[in-house]
Amino acid sequence: MELTHFNETGRARMVDVAEKSDTRRLAVAVGKVLMQSETLALIQQGRIAKGDVLAVAQVAGIMAAKRTWELIPMCHPLLLTGVDLSFSIKPEECSVELTATVSTTGKTGVEMEALTAVSAAALTIYDMCKAVDRGMTIESICLQTKSGGKSGHYQRGGKP
Amino acid sequence: MELTHFNETGRARMVDVAEKSDTRRLAVAVGKVLMQSETLALIQQGRIAKGDVLAVAQVAGIMAAKRTWELIPMCHPLLLTGVDLSFSIKPEECSVELTATVSTTGKTGVEMEALTAVSAAALTIYDMCKAVDRGMTIESICLQTKSGGKSGHYQRGGKP
Amino acid sequence: MELTHFNETGRARMVDVAEKSDTRRLAVAVGKVLMQSETLALIQQGRIAKGDVLAVAQVAGIMAAKRTWELIPMCHPLLLTGVDLSFSIKPEECSVELTATVSTTGKTGVEMEALTAVSAAALTIYDMCKAVDRGMTIESICLQTKSGGKSGHYQRGGKP
Amino acid sequence: MELTHFNETGRARMVDVAEKSDTRRLAVAVGKVLMQSETLALIQQGRIAKGDVLAVAQVAGIMAAKRTWELIPMCHPLLLTGVDLSFSIKPEECSVELTATVSTTGKTGVEMEALTAVSAAALTIYDMCKAVDRGMTIESICLQTKSGGKSGHYQRGGKP
Amino acid sequence: MELTHFNETGRARMVDVAEKSDTRRLAVAVGKVLMQSETLALIQQGRIAKGDVLAVAQVAGIMAAKRTWELIPMCHPLLLTGVDLSFSIKPEECSVELTATVSTTGKTGVEMEALTAVSAAALTIYDMCKAVDRGMTIESICLQTKSGGKSGHYQRGGKP
Amino acid sequence: MELTHFNETGRARMVDVAEKSDTRRLAVAVGKVLMQSETLALIQQGRIAKGDVLAVAQVAGIMAAKRTWELIPMCHPLLLTGVDLSFSIKPEECSVELTATVSTTGKTGVEMEALTAVSAAALTIYDMCKAVDRGMTIESICLQTKSGGKSGHYQRGGKP
Repeated sequence: MELTHFNETGRARMVDVAEKSDTRRLAVAVGKVLMQSETLALIQQGRIAKGDVLAVAQVAGIMAAKRTWELIPMCHPLLLTGVDLSFSIKPEECSVELTATVSTTGKTGVEMEALTAVSAAALTIYDMCKAVDRGMTIESICLQTKSGGKSGHYQRGGKP
Repeated sequence: MELTHFNETGRARMVDVAEKSDTRRLAVAVGKVLMQSETLALIQQGRIAKGDVLAVAQVAGIMAAKRTWELIPMCHPLLLTGVDLSFSIKPEECSVELTATVSTTGKTGVEMEALTAVSAAALTIYDMCKAVDRGMTIESICLQTKSGGKSGHYQRGGKP
Repeated sequence: MELTHFNETGRARMVDVAEKSDTRRLAVAVGKVLMQSETLALIQQGRIAKGDVLAVAQVAGIMAAKRTWELIPMCHPLLLTGVDLSFSIKPEECSVELTATVSTTGKTGVEMEALTAVSAAALTIYDMCKAVDRGMTIESICLQTKSGGKSGHYQRGGKP
Repeated sequence: MELTHFNETGRARMVDVAEKSDTRRLAVAVGKVLMQSETLALIQQGRIAKGDVLAVAQVAGIMAAKRTWELIPMCHPLLLTGVDLSFSIKPEECSVELTATVSTTGKTGVEMEALTAVSAAALTIYDMCKAVDRGMTIESICLQTKSGGKSGHYQRGGKP
Repeated sequence: MELTHFNETGRARMVDVAEKSDTRRLAVAVGKVLMQSETLALIQQGRIAKGDVLAVAQVAGIMAAKRTWELIPMCHPLLLTGVDLSFSIKPEECSVELTATVSTTGKTGVEMEALTAVSAAALTIYDMCKAVDRGMTIESICLQTKSGGKSGHYQRGGKP
Repeated sequence: MELTHFNETGRARMVDVAEKSDTRRLAVAVGKVLMQSETLALIQQGRIAKGDVLAVAQVAGIMAAKRTWELIPMCHPLLLTGVDLSFSIKPEECSVELTATVSTTGKTGVEMEALTAVSAAALTIYDMCKAVDRGMTIESICLQTKSGGKSGHYQRGGKP
């Protein structure tokens, strides 16, 4: 077992994937933002009345996914063919759950793009609500499923 | 209690902070990446022999902090005066803990910059190690302390 | 009368504004997107039911304003202190009117930032609706008012 | 008739185009900048003597076209194969007309890239001349022709 | 012999390469940074003890290579499939030699990406060491080899 | 003598400059591109007839200077107040000499911004002419003068 992102001198490189074939690839990542119940209520009411926090987070996540290769040093640039985000309000644990689905036809997978979409959307929720709740935490960002490419299908064992 | 990031029509805006004074501001954010013990061992050995995952994550986190305002839609642009990141290996829970410290002299706080530094560094750790461990999760990203500005000092209640 | 954006050899330069003082500056720019009545109806209904075109345009305009200096070659970088956008539906001429308000405390004005916010938001409206209406046109992008700085207050003669 | 840029919950998404085929695509967009006759004269003389406003606008338009997907939230990233811009001085209406031609081989059209090239070039003309003419307006930005892809050829009805 | 980056009116354009075929392309560029012997010693010792200048330069060069088309106005966007950088300490001439290897499968070559990687890494070495040695110079940045595409293989005559 | 860009664990950091005062700072950097005499002739003729290579390089250099902090990992973001570039044709050694002058009022110097402007402009000259001359080399990029800040005035010993 070794890390492929390093060259023979032990320095980081962007691994050459030229020999990999262009295949359809999909990745789903999830995560959540824990907050106070009052904050969650503000987000829920917002869509109707005061301002839609999740609409801004949605756009932030999608835009960040496209720029993943600019942010993560050894990530390959990819032409994403699709990005979607969904949010699920969980009143019982006072959280917003985020799910990002990213697809491409290319030589490398889109795990990082899906994880970046979730992270940027979660950070945006924090930013939009921080004036009322500085204690929010971002939890359980992980890869849910992945398909396409040589390494085949990945399905996370259990719910994160 | 209301969200200030929206205008009177309920649409998002970047709040006008022109009246705020330029003060010295500091924020510390933390987070961690949970992984398999073999992955943690690779990271630990890497610095000496095979390739330094955390050196790449360090650079990624610092560079991302400077671009926070490009990623988070309603974030104000700021001239960061300092960014530092540190990592702490926690063998008992198989994790790498990340701490980012960001400072500026400006009209708004640097919480988002510290949280973005932690997020980008954590994502980079995931990227560098994902070939050997797809199940890693990013956990407990939150603000630890914050000082400067009208809202004063913030210290998180307990360890995240 | 001469163009200050060129040096003595006739090549473009970013004019040195170091001697200018940091003052509070504000600019308002406007523009509109003309479209078919069916398209306008879709935008109007969208906020309630199907998808909020203007919420996406709002975010796009604000984010573009912050990056104006990256897009417009001789523009000075500025720390915007506020950006807001508003939209007004004009059924009689089948258009959406856009107004962007940008502020800063700095050495140069924010006209370009306000005009860029309007342009990016207008382009986003086009993008979101182009599947149903390729013939939309973007019209009358201009500066409405400007204040702050040595050149003083500017108020456009009449409604654009 | 509906807007495809939204998911089933009414939130914006970047539509999945993975099933679309890679075809040769071309788009031509136009627009114009109206100004005072003295400003137009400065631009005309500039190329020979004082500084070439349109050369800067040309570069700005081409560079912006390549970054369209960063600016327009739901735009797909594309590898542009060609971008050209041309300017036509119209003394009778005191305007500079801009035409952008963009091509790619890909899964989505390049309308947005052509429109963004025109917009950025027009904004740059404004920026370069604003010290002498704040009243300039950007007018009639629209798609002229488009070819390639499933939706086939589009030709605007009349001169914009 | 003529410059293809200009259109028939003598203005810059991004040449249309749509007719070119997607082939495997590789480029190697080199360069060096000359410095004082004390500075070179600090870099050499750094990896072990004090801080690894070249690790930061490595990441900077790789990240810059991916963004070449954003920096060089008429460069085509490309999906790089691999980027690697190596450094060679030359005590006899007090220099660090840099070599960047870039690959893609695409319609244009990757010379500019390799040259940009070397330039950004060299600038980063300067930045990291400038507090102790302002007189460093960056020398002999050039293309070493290039393969793929219609123009065929290029091999630089002698050592730069 | 030690490198300040590293923290106590030997990892890179962006040094905190909050305590430094905002002073007027200026830096001049130079460099040159060596080429075949036919290439130099094309550049010289270009301005009049066929296409102005140096006009494109000028814009590229200015735009890159503003984004230096995005490219060079430990560089502080700065609001540049002025950027200018000039070119000097040296027929005797078949080169184009580049000089970049950058100014700001801020807490850190602008050496890196001036060096980045020269590098990006030199790379652009290479890009615009590479179809006719792949053997060009970029030479002698260095800091010429620097003023402002605690470290005071710097003047390079002799002509590079």
